Amino acid sequence: MAFLLRICTMPTALIIVNGLLPQPPILTDCLRQVDQIICADGGANRACAAGIIPDVIVGDLDSITPETRAQLCTTTYLYRPSQYATDLEKTLQYAVEQHIQKALLVGMTGFRLDHQICNLHMMEKFATHLELELHDDFGVGSFLIAPEPRSFRFETFPGQQISLFAFRKTAGIHTTGLKYPLKGESLTWAVRDGLSNEALHTEITIQITQGSLFCYRVRQLKSC
Amino acid sequence: MAFLLRICTMPTALIIVNGLLPQPPILTDCLRQVDQIICADGGANRACAAGIIPDVIVGDLDSITPETRAQLCTTTYLYRPSQYATDLEKTLQYAVEQHIQKALLVGMTGFRLDHQICNLHMMEKFATHLELELHDDFGVGSFLIAPEPRSFRFETFPGQQISLFAFRKTAGIHTTGLKYPLKGESLTWAVRDGLSNEALHTEITIQITQGSLFCYRVRQLKSC
Repeated sequence: MAFLLRICTMPTALIIVNGLLPQPPILTDCLRQVDQIICADGGANRACAAGIIPDVIVGDLDSITPETRAQLCTTTYLYRPSQYATDLEKTLQYAVEQHIQKALLVGMTGFRLDHQICNLHMMEKFATHLELELHDDFGVGSFLIAPEPRSFRFETFPGQQISLFAFRKTAGIHTTGLKYPLKGESLTWAVRDGLSNEALHTEITIQITQGSLFCYRVRQLKSC
Repeated sequence: MAFLLRICTMPTALIIVNGLLPQPPILTDCLRQVDQIICADGGANRACAAGIIPDVIVGDLDSITPETRAQLCTTTYLYRPSQYATDLEKTLQYAVEQHIQKALLVGMTGFRLDHQICNLHMMEKFATHLELELHDDFGVGSFLIAPEPRSFRFETFPGQQISLFAFRKTAGIHTTGLKYPLKGESLTWAVRDGLSNEALHTEITIQITQGSLFCYRVRQLKSC
């Protein structure tokens, strides 16, 4: 029965990547929402430093320090060597295999820019397979993917900054509840972005005809 | 004569954006290479904190603190209000108007992810107008733009990590001097990236048939 229940509830995971983890209040809030904790290789060092014990660690396992290994003796280590996939890719692949429905991603930002770009690129690659939400100190990011016209709804607060970006081009964007509405317009990489739009009330909707859009909702906290 | 000389030499600028500035050795090295210093609005606060006096500040001028203003009484303030352009866009536009040939960009990374993405998007937008180089603690980034087949050459050191990304799709990539060579292959956003390739010697070349590619060369310094 427990097994059946687990399948039915389609578990939510916290995936810890080897970047900068959010501050405790955000991290604690993420931990409250998840059923299991998975680290992408060196993310285990970040987890340990934050006092988090992961259930599973996936990857080359070449970035985990001996100190982390010593602390995580009850954790499952999944050795998946390959030069052709990053540890995050292997971890997301594992999450798909485990029928994870939703994953909160932390440690996706900070430090090396190429790692951050690659993390975003990988996030979009898997966004059709499971629901992914990036959490960092400054906001919450998600890719809105629509093989056909689809509407996405987000809870907001008045004045919340909402940024929209198309890597490549996204056409036919319609929004409601934003200060600068889009009415069937396009966003295109290196041509037009939707930086720092603003929620008017407690809900916005974003509809796209086809393609994908990265939506980043800035936290209430005043940031740098 | 001085005016003519200035036109002939096509000056290099340091553009300071409102993100995280690199550590002193990198910042000092950037300062040595430039003829003038331009800040994108709130970048002036970062400059002041690092002991740098800019020549010009461009933007809405709504992010400069009274303390910064008090310290920068000899600086030129260029008030360019507009809801439809970021301060970085206004600053790059100003650099183009001033016939700047090359600009080193600092403060492009760190803090809000949406700002970082927008900075990259803006960098590519202007990369056909002037030579742009992003410098942060972990590496040096540049967009390789080719309206027609073109080869780019970089000085490297053996083992240097070189990451290549296509926002959108870039076809016909040929490289020399890399551990994992590309031979007419494509890189595509959310499909295939070129994370952490490796220079074999002291020089690499990257040829692209058409389109653009973001190249990030990781510094020698071991990073997180």
